[in-house]
Amino acid sequence: MNRQELIAQIKKKKSVLCVGLDTDLSRIPKHLLATEDPIFEFNKAIIDATNSYAVAYKPNLAFYEAEGLAGWKSLEKTIEYLNAYYPDLFSIADAKRGDIGNTGKRYAQAFFNRLNFDSITVAPYMGRDSIEPFLGYPSKWAIVLALTSNPGGADFQLQKLASSNSLYQEVLAQTSSWASEEEMMYVVGATKSEFLIEIRKQIPNHFLLVPGVGAQGGSVADVMEHGQGSKDIGLLINSSRGVIYASEGADFADAAGQEAKKLQEQMAIYL
Amino acid sequence: MNRQELIAQIKKKKSVLCVGLDTDLSRIPKHLLATEDPIFEFNKAIIDATNSYAVAYKPNLAFYEAEGLAGWKSLEKTIEYLNAYYPDLFSIADAKRGDIGNTGKRYAQAFFNRLNFDSITVAPYMGRDSIEPFLGYPSKWAIVLALTSNPGGADFQLQKLASSNSLYQEVLAQTSSWASEEEMMYVVGATKSEFLIEIRKQIPNHFLLVPGVGAQGGSVADVMEHGQGSKDIGLLINSSRGVIYASEGADFADAAGQEAKKLQEQMAIYL
Repeated sequence: MNRQELIAQIKKKKSVLCVGLDTDLSRIPKHLLATEDPIFEFNKAIIDATNSYAVAYKPNLAFYEAEGLAGWKSLEKTIEYLNAYYPDLFSIADAKRGDIGNTGKRYAQAFFNRLNFDSITVAPYMGRDSIEPFLGYPSKWAIVLALTSNPGGADFQLQKLASSNSLYQEVLAQTSSWASEEEMMYVVGATKSEFLIEIRKQIPNHFLLVPGVGAQGGSVADVMEHGQGSKDIGLLINSSRGVIYASEGADFADAAGQEAKKLQEQMAIYL
Repeated sequence: MNRQELIAQIKKKKSVLCVGLDTDLSRIPKHLLATEDPIFEFNKAIIDATNSYAVAYKPNLAFYEAEGLAGWKSLEKTIEYLNAYYPDLFSIADAKRGDIGNTGKRYAQAFFNRLNFDSITVAPYMGRDSIEPFLGYPSKWAIVLALTSNPGGADFQLQKLASSNSLYQEVLAQTSSWASEEEMMYVVGATKSEFLIEIRKQIPNHFLLVPGVGAQGGSVADVMEHGQGSKDIGLLINSSRGVIYASEGADFADAAGQEAKKLQEQMAIYL
């Protein structure tokens, strides 16, 4: 999906909501465990119930890998379902990959060619040749970790460099020179919304993927106010557990739909 | 595998060789493509032919993920084969994972519990709570990226901090305070062997996993001379393409065995 298509969908739905599919067999409703593929059945029901309010879906790879072969199969079925039934939705493989060039190419092959995700999250520690393998695919995106929402985000990302930048600012400065805003986005944690103003001075137009709303404590209003780009919105706000585990009962999908709707309504005020 | 067992095996074989299983369908001998699981058949033959000269094996996850479900199955079969037939060999999931705590736990579940690898490579950018999920498993290891062998390794890892450390030194300083040398190792690229002396001043005892020998240009002699710890060797030197693709013909396994033997003999001089 290209930038224009993503922006058009955001404007149409008045939503920047990304639903994180951190699907965990120990937390999904018990009646689904009797089905052949509980993870896929859960994801399918969540997507069906929330897609009017969301513009993107983000399976978190760890939850699928934790279930081995069966988990990888659930992941394949989930992205196939999204692409077949909801081709207007933006898909994110939250995989945080990053390795040398010949290895990075294989990750790009896995997530862009084979699974056909629109985008993948990537870690910048190994530098330019670890990110370039994800560039140059038409309508595909690399989403680079800049400033993350977890407590450990401060350990290295906020280290001051001799150049007076923080490390995450250096990551923004360098990586944004490697690719345009048409194929690169950044992960910026919502629990750091005081940083959004600074980040928007540095990269006014790139899309930001903002996790950390809900279970991790960030506020949608703060992010909508300070995180939008100088044009075309430029935001995706992720909620995972707050939406998908809104209820543990048979009404889980309806409850997820209601939560997604609430978030969409908070977003619409600013759109 | 714990530290004492790894050291004992190194001393017995007079080798610190790790064979990287970057198994690529486009490079393995053509006759294997007719088998039910070419990647596993290739790995099995390589392991059988090289295990007298090697102490560790390192499947590179990207190459398995690039083949989808079939690739994940080949990975499962490879680690099962290693654990069943060669329980004295150290296994490394070269996955370079790193995410927030609840996600990191799932990656640890995937690689330590389900696949039963001895260790996994992890990226430090997201800080302490992204690495801690891999700690506290008896006889399991987190192998943290410190200074990598690719050209982009310099982009961020060599940035000077206001504190006068380079970023990779800050990573060593902080992460080495989170866990002992019994459960943490570091990735240090062989193409940066001039840095080994500095690194050994900072962390004299931790094991280093040194890739970049062979195809990437590093020298075994340099690493053996400057990379050993103050006690108990503390080194694993990886070669991937140089060993496993020594021949593209029917003799591929023998050729890999010969290359592994050559490397082992270079290592034995220093052990």
